[in-house]
Amino acid sequence: MPEVFREDDLLAYIRDTARALGPHVKTGPGDDLAVLDLQGRTMLVGVDQVVEGVHFVKGTDPELVGRKAVTRNISDVAAMAARPVACVAACTLPADVDPGYARRLVDGVRRTAIQFNAPLVGGDTGIHRGHGPLMLSVTILAEPISPVHPPVLRSGGKADDRLHVTGSLGGSLRPDGSGHHLDFEPRLDEAEALVSSLGAGLHAMMDLSDGLAQDAWRMAVASHVQIVIDVAALPCNAGCGWHEAVSDGEDYELLFAVAASTTVPKTLGRQRTKTTQIGLMRPMPNPDAPRVIGLLDDVELAMDRFGRFHEARSAR
Amino acid sequence: MPEVFREDDLLAYIRDTARALGPHVKTGPGDDLAVLDLQGRTMLVGVDQVVEGVHFVKGTDPELVGRKAVTRNISDVAAMAARPVACVAACTLPADVDPGYARRLVDGVRRTAIQFNAPLVGGDTGIHRGHGPLMLSVTILAEPISPVHPPVLRSGGKADDRLHVTGSLGGSLRPDGSGHHLDFEPRLDEAEALVSSLGAGLHAMMDLSDGLAQDAWRMAVASHVQIVIDVAALPCNAGCGWHEAVSDGEDYELLFAVAASTTVPKTLGRQRTKTTQIGLMRPMPNPDAPRVIGLLDDVELAMDRFGRFHEARSAR
Repeated sequence: MPEVFREDDLLAYIRDTARALGPHVKTGPGDDLAVLDLQGRTMLVGVDQVVEGVHFVKGTDPELVGRKAVTRNISDVAAMAARPVACVAACTLPADVDPGYARRLVDGVRRTAIQFNAPLVGGDTGIHRGHGPLMLSVTILAEPISPVHPPVLRSGGKADDRLHVTGSLGGSLRPDGSGHHLDFEPRLDEAEALVSSLGAGLHAMMDLSDGLAQDAWRMAVASHVQIVIDVAALPCNAGCGWHEAVSDGEDYELLFAVAASTTVPKTLGRQRTKTTQIGLMRPMPNPDAPRVIGLLDDVELAMDRFGRFHEARSAR
Repeated sequence: MPEVFREDDLLAYIRDTARALGPHVKTGPGDDLAVLDLQGRTMLVGVDQVVEGVHFVKGTDPELVGRKAVTRNISDVAAMAARPVACVAACTLPADVDPGYARRLVDGVRRTAIQFNAPLVGGDTGIHRGHGPLMLSVTILAEPISPVHPPVLRSGGKADDRLHVTGSLGGSLRPDGSGHHLDFEPRLDEAEALVSSLGAGLHAMMDLSDGLAQDAWRMAVASHVQIVIDVAALPCNAGCGWHEAVSDGEDYELLFAVAASTTVPKTLGRQRTKTTQIGLMRPMPNPDAPRVIGLLDDVELAMDRFGRFHEARSAR
């Protein structure tokens, strides 16, 4: 039977074959952004794309498409507790695209980029020869917020850390293609507030793009811990329950781990975005133990990457 | 009649709407790479993509596709007389792509990136929901070769400068999709040799990606000069005449302008790549004069961006 292609496998291949990158690469593929040390100066870089039919439906307002391509990247910058510097964009357009549509796509990128102090400084455009969907990739450059605050990685979590999220979860992407995933506010200001108030007490952070269950699994693997999520504590968006909160993607909230002794502000930044403690980290009881445990009515159950519960053979 | 979309128009729109980019953006859209000044440190960044059916034909060896996506960017780094630091890549793949094919694509990117000291430090992958071509964009980060050698822009040319190219031109892209465009060697080493030997005498530089006529036109506009090309002096690849040399794209040789008093080495770098003087720059005689003039049998004729000659109303 032919092997089936899966996105995650290819990302894992990129990560696992990332060898001999050079001494200036402090963090390679696998975190929200890569971290480079250029003779004492830290730079961060990462890329994210949006594809018609995958990340947005045909007919979506092009300015919102351009906006989303930028804000997905800004969310990655927030997740590293960094500050955007500039961005570049590459797009491939259908041959029959309306020039006005294409310009509005650029407007969406350009204006959003300026809004977050990440000016669009370069681009490449192409036209499909035959049929093909609109594709837009944006690469973001960022710097640490200040020399005393290095980037916050997803791998810095420790046993006994408390796990928190910003905002509330679930329901970002509606079946008709609309929803918060197009116009969310990346948590840049909130991340800066966290760094300012917690300093080195902020151990690990990432943004929630693929659903809490999946992303918590990634943070647990990167930090070599087991994560326990108190399902009843999850902050849910209107119309959502805990199942949507753990399994829906595209929330673009921050998931972060802090030292147990740390007091996390109840609200963050100019928007006074709320924070909620949703769980904790603990040592992996054994190498085969589940990475993520859901605590439901005082019972611990293994949670898979799609947010489904399973009877854990050995949850502890 | 509906307006027809053209790539160049959209790139011009990106360039022309690039306002309020911030004081740290020294060169925005429009050169081979953007130039940023981050508190005294210069960083360069740019993006280039390859799309199936546009930049390579279906069935092309995926390692060569990955290689080309990187080398196009390395060529831009050479054109700025800079040095690569790192790259990131985004690809979108057909739903039915063979996983082995996808991994070889990544291998092509990764190995080429390491070869040119631009390690692949991050990536994003996606799968088309319906039909769609393979698309791969690579963003390159670079630094100046040394603090005393700032990036060389395409806008630095001056009247009376002599115009040179590396290597020879034409025939890179054969009708069947094969040819030098897949396995060319970007002129990184040659650019470094030029900077070392000419210093500030090297006024302007760019790489030849869209054909000499088109690219010389861009350099002439950026440098506010008229360019005269001595057609008989053009170094042509086997099987090519001057017409192919001015109109074929994807040569990825360097086009550079030097002060008239400067002696350009006959060969450059470890490969001993030849250089050829092909023309000069002079003041625009009037604002409506042609940007590029071809000198053919002692007659000056206006050359359009496709390399075709026209009777000039006022060539001088």
